[in-house]
Amino acid sequence: MENIIIKPIAVIRTDFPEKFGIPRQSGRIDSLIGRIVFLPEYRSHESLREIESFSHLWLLFDFSLAHRETWSPTVRPPRLGGNRRIGVFASRSPYRPNPIGLSSVRLLRIEKTEGDGEVLIVSGADLLDGTPILDIKPYLPFSDCHPDAVGGYADEQRDYHLRVECPPELLESVPEEKRSPLLSCLADDPRPSYQNDPSRVYGMRFSGFEVRFTVHEDILNVIEIRKEDEV
Amino acid sequence: MENIIIKPIAVIRTDFPEKFGIPRQSGRIDSLIGRIVFLPEYRSHESLREIESFSHLWLLFDFSLAHRETWSPTVRPPRLGGNRRIGVFASRSPYRPNPIGLSSVRLLRIEKTEGDGEVLIVSGADLLDGTPILDIKPYLPFSDCHPDAVGGYADEQRDYHLRVECPPELLESVPEEKRSPLLSCLADDPRPSYQNDPSRVYGMRFSGFEVRFTVHEDILNVIEIRKEDEV
Repeated sequence: MENIIIKPIAVIRTDFPEKFGIPRQSGRIDSLIGRIVFLPEYRSHESLREIESFSHLWLLFDFSLAHRETWSPTVRPPRLGGNRRIGVFASRSPYRPNPIGLSSVRLLRIEKTEGDGEVLIVSGADLLDGTPILDIKPYLPFSDCHPDAVGGYADEQRDYHLRVECPPELLESVPEEKRSPLLSCLADDPRPSYQNDPSRVYGMRFSGFEVRFTVHEDILNVIEIRKEDEV
Repeated sequence: MENIIIKPIAVIRTDFPEKFGIPRQSGRIDSLIGRIVFLPEYRSHESLREIESFSHLWLLFDFSLAHRETWSPTVRPPRLGGNRRIGVFASRSPYRPNPIGLSSVRLLRIEKTEGDGEVLIVSGADLLDGTPILDIKPYLPFSDCHPDAVGGYADEQRDYHLRVECPPELLESVPEEKRSPLLSCLADDPRPSYQNDPSRVYGMRFSGFEVRFTVHEDILNVIEIRKEDEV
């Protein structure tokens, strides 16, 4: 059976320069905004015709940090405590035989830019900044939406949230439109689930800021927010 | 930006030896059964651990008949009459820069076989027999199901069906479990939408049979069902 060669068509710009802090699945945090910038040879007004009649899109993307020569039949999802093994095909882990990711996002609008051509503005993307996009498809509710679907072990994790306490003077340094997504990402608990050390200080990078916090029981305390340029 | 090389991990066996007759989207016809057979190097009991706790799966697959050197920014979906142009990224057409398809299916069970190892039995697959499968992921209702999603032009086509008239003596030659999926595929109207010639005889291949029919207004008349071996 033939291999196929896949070429990135676009790149997504998000607030996440690194993996730590990215929501566990797409669509969890609607206020997160991503910009899909097409590579020059895929910039085409025509290729987007009628795309705005869809509210949601699928992104197929390259798990570019998860390329490996070999693959493991099981993975340990961080949310399940990090020691329960799940079959790789029963998981959305990036570490899989073919490192392709799948996320649904909301399409907010098409933006015409000077240097980048037409850019898709989307919300809810759980992707690393700079992730190569391999394909964009419309979300078709009548075939893609299964309200009766059962989510297996993933259902167990669905309503988990932390309470975030952040002194207002720290939050002031963050642009207003970035505050709500930042607080939502913190509430989603960026820590690996198996860590529970109230004295540990975590650092999360978000939209050009470094945010430092501790977690005690179900309360997350922000202790510092620093603009990265000032480091 | 780097190209990635994708290796098929499995192949799906379905009732469709050719494109004509395949439902337009996955999940439309629940009685269609597909068998996902892993390639020898991806046969692993462990890789399927806990997969049966999910009711639905995503299949990423190779649109193997749609490989092209170039791509066109627009496509003409057959269901829209064949002359309305839609942007390729606003379509699920196989003719796209990276020919990867996405379908959700229902996971019925894992079957242990003698020669093929563990096989996934799924329903609702709109795939050609022998399609290479690139990845299998669990369907996660809380991030993949958007009941509020708007389907654009695709919504217009949602409730369209033909009435199928098939003489019982013709249907008798088809194994019982294949009758309902066959009739459903016919009711879904296999014709390209722009064709409307009541005198035309269509032939559709399904599960080792050739089915011949005509369509007049919204009635499909089956005129012959022939086992292919007997041809």
